[in-house]
Amino acid sequence: MEVMKVLHMNGGVGETSYADNSSVQLEMLSMTRPILEEAITGLYLSISPWPSTLTIADLGCSSGPTAFFAVSEVIGAVENLCRKMGHNEPPEYQFYLNDLPGNDFNALFRALPKMQEEEARCFFTGVAGSFYGRLFPCKSLHFVHSSLALQWLSQVPRMIECNKGNIYMASSSPKSVMDAYYRQFQNDFSVFLKCRAMELVPGGCMVLTFVGRRSEDRSSSECCSIWELLAMALNEMVSESVPSETVLIRIMKGT
Amino acid sequence: MEVMKVLHMNGGVGETSYADNSSVQLEMLSMTRPILEEAITGLYLSISPWPSTLTIADLGCSSGPTAFFAVSEVIGAVENLCRKMGHNEPPEYQFYLNDLPGNDFNALFRALPKMQEEEARCFFTGVAGSFYGRLFPCKSLHFVHSSLALQWLSQVPRMIECNKGNIYMASSSPKSVMDAYYRQFQNDFSVFLKCRAMELVPGGCMVLTFVGRRSEDRSSSECCSIWELLAMALNEMVSESVPSETVLIRIMKGT
Repeated sequence: MEVMKVLHMNGGVGETSYADNSSVQLEMLSMTRPILEEAITGLYLSISPWPSTLTIADLGCSSGPTAFFAVSEVIGAVENLCRKMGHNEPPEYQFYLNDLPGNDFNALFRALPKMQEEEARCFFTGVAGSFYGRLFPCKSLHFVHSSLALQWLSQVPRMIECNKGNIYMASSSPKSVMDAYYRQFQNDFSVFLKCRAMELVPGGCMVLTFVGRRSEDRSSSECCSIWELLAMALNEMVSESVPSETVLIRIMKGT
Repeated sequence: MEVMKVLHMNGGVGETSYADNSSVQLEMLSMTRPILEEAITGLYLSISPWPSTLTIADLGCSSGPTAFFAVSEVIGAVENLCRKMGHNEPPEYQFYLNDLPGNDFNALFRALPKMQEEEARCFFTGVAGSFYGRLFPCKSLHFVHSSLALQWLSQVPRMIECNKGNIYMASSSPKSVMDAYYRQFQNDFSVFLKCRAMELVPGGCMVLTFVGRRSEDRSSSECCSIWELLAMALNEMVSESVPSETVLIRIMKGT
């Protein structure tokens, strides 16, 4: 799976890093707080006895502050619930922070010591791998969280027709290309659910946030315009031989 | 704890990397195989029922092939035992690979996919932190392994006397300095044992390999000569003002 080896957010903490350019992602996390609280309450009610250690996986965590923001939200929701339920002894937390092997885990881990000091009952681990495959042992997770990661497919779908210089679904893409993307998502999401079903404990739960669209038009500007712009820029660069057409074809095929 | 932030083996996979310069460590791992097998047998006999997932921590794993060599040894020992005991369904394995936050986890994780493909029942996570503190939730580990890592202290000990230009115990070190190193080891190892006692399940076990010496002389060449040579080289560089004496004093104090 070539995409798995090369795809990752910009590492480090500099100007072009994901860590310094993820304010939209942080806002989205903030918006999903009520859903997360509801899910944690459901978890509490369905698992008995309440475990002394909660195991939580954040899938597609990247290396920026969003990873820790999600952690804080989960802890906040659990502690609130414990107070409400008169549960005096809050649990320990085992957080599995997952992303692809190309993610900058070094940057993520260097930011950890401060977080660990603040939350002495939190234990963090990094898990490098694709969530379109098994990542954890059977029945080992209580809660799975993934924010704005599942819209990334495991690979560029196999297409019978050429995508006419596009790098994703665009207004000029043939219907067969649109269908190929749809099938790829169906396959990927089905694998994702099968893997998580094995890894979650009975009564465990998930909160997943996707990029979506309100329009029925699959190449709607709500989700696809950024890729059309990027394809235009790449094609322009090809016309100036930077990069070569062969490189562009490889980008389009994800190889 | 400044030492924790800066101490790590050379990352990457190049000529000067730890990955390419750890043949002694690999040999040591090979030598301890019988001890490891004995420990795994003891674990099997003391834990009932035999868990469907074995959780194993390798403390001070670094980023080289030694991390995976230890993993293979553990798996080999468990599979052997399962065959002997007529236990047809081998367990899943959750490996926690631990080292300080400055370790090159990116290099470690990039080497993982191949290992994961070979061992489909193995799940790997990286844990960044000092083993002179809590790293895992209570009663979460079956087996702890650490090879040639526990001789690294958590900090340069507080010393009442100057160490006469040495950076470790040397033949010219005063007795008070030797005693300070001894006390530091006692404190550190005591903290290590207390933390692991909380993290291991009842019946869990550990295999720890240290650098030792046969001689009673604490500055014996068996373990200390390399540091005497390094101190001589540093002092020579100071006399040529590279680095300055202030920098050397910081190195000696680990700050």
